Amino acid sequence: MYRIARKQDFPVNQVRRYLEPGPIVLVSSKWRDETNVMTLGWHTVMEFSPSLVGCVISAGNHSFELIRDSGECVINLPTTVLTDIVVGIGNTSGAEIDKFEEFELTAEKARKVRAPLIKECHANFECRLYDDVLVEKYNFFIFEVVHAHVAVSPRYPETLHYTGDGRFQLAGATISRRSRFRQEML
Amino acid sequence: MYRIARKQDFPVNQVRRYLEPGPIVLVSSKWRDETNVMTLGWHTVMEFSPSLVGCVISAGNHSFELIRDSGECVINLPTTVLTDIVVGIGNTSGAEIDKFEEFELTAEKARKVRAPLIKECHANFECRLYDDVLVEKYNFFIFEVVHAHVAVSPRYPETLHYTGDGRFQLAGATISRRSRFRQEML
Repeated sequence: MYRIARKQDFPVNQVRRYLEPGPIVLVSSKWRDETNVMTLGWHTVMEFSPSLVGCVISAGNHSFELIRDSGECVINLPTTVLTDIVVGIGNTSGAEIDKFEEFELTAEKARKVRAPLIKECHANFECRLYDDVLVEKYNFFIFEVVHAHVAVSPRYPETLHYTGDGRFQLAGATISRRSRFRQEML
Repeated sequence: MYRIARKQDFPVNQVRRYLEPGPIVLVSSKWRDETNVMTLGWHTVMEFSPSLVGCVISAGNHSFELIRDSGECVINLPTTVLTDIVVGIGNTSGAEIDKFEEFELTAEKARKVRAPLIKECHANFECRLYDDVLVEKYNFFIFEVVHAHVAVSPRYPETLHYTGDGRFQLAGATISRRSRFRQEML
């Protein structure tokens, strides 16, 4: 449905390149015979190595149990061509429909987890649950990114950033201030 | 130095409007007679009410102890007019210089915490440490936003989103898909 450039393996300790700017992501999961996808905007990078990402996955989501029980997921990075699919996924429940089928997404086999990659996304970060200490109290999952795939182009994907109330801020221009950084801060 | 529109109080349970898109923020702190500011890109909204925000503040930062000891900070939202100041703050240490003085920032009195607001920023979120359970292991602070101030204009501030390697993605256009959302998802 949507064409995406060939993907390459990407260093897991550099996923902040795509996640730190704060995009909406699609989280895919699988437990036993069931597969699901959800939209997620509440996430943060937590460490370079191991490559840790913290995500709030509300217990009200159908994905919550699939991810908690399997201890795995894939964080997929959609771009603006997928805007209406991102909205559709966020406004439906995997308890009622098969979202891969409904939204014509292609599930690809991951390398290290059983949850599927979403082919139409710019990047796919395979995750294993690293620490569940805050899952019960805050629905906060700390994942380790164990394998990463990123499309070779475009270099700066146009991501979606949710502001609430049905509105998204789109990624704009990219600027460099590299010359003003201390070497060890890069 | 930089003019900013008048600020209004803003509902603390709606700060996701400004933080969920993933901007770089400036975190100001105060402990005893010492004040500091740091740049921070690793944060996530965690709950609407109480209004919780999780932040990774590396123990290597001079701000770490000020925030841990005072149990307070202010999350300030800079826009692109402050780009070089954001970079300067991120590449210097409060152990060596007074950053408010060095970068000619105006410290304003907060309403509910002793840490100062940065007047030149578009928004200021006063925070109290809510849960320190992950501070030792991950340098992860869970704050409650106890008071929020937001400039009345512009409606969509041009924020900075860090991608690593000295590069920032700027906030671009804003689009609405409100009509495609279920009411309870807004």
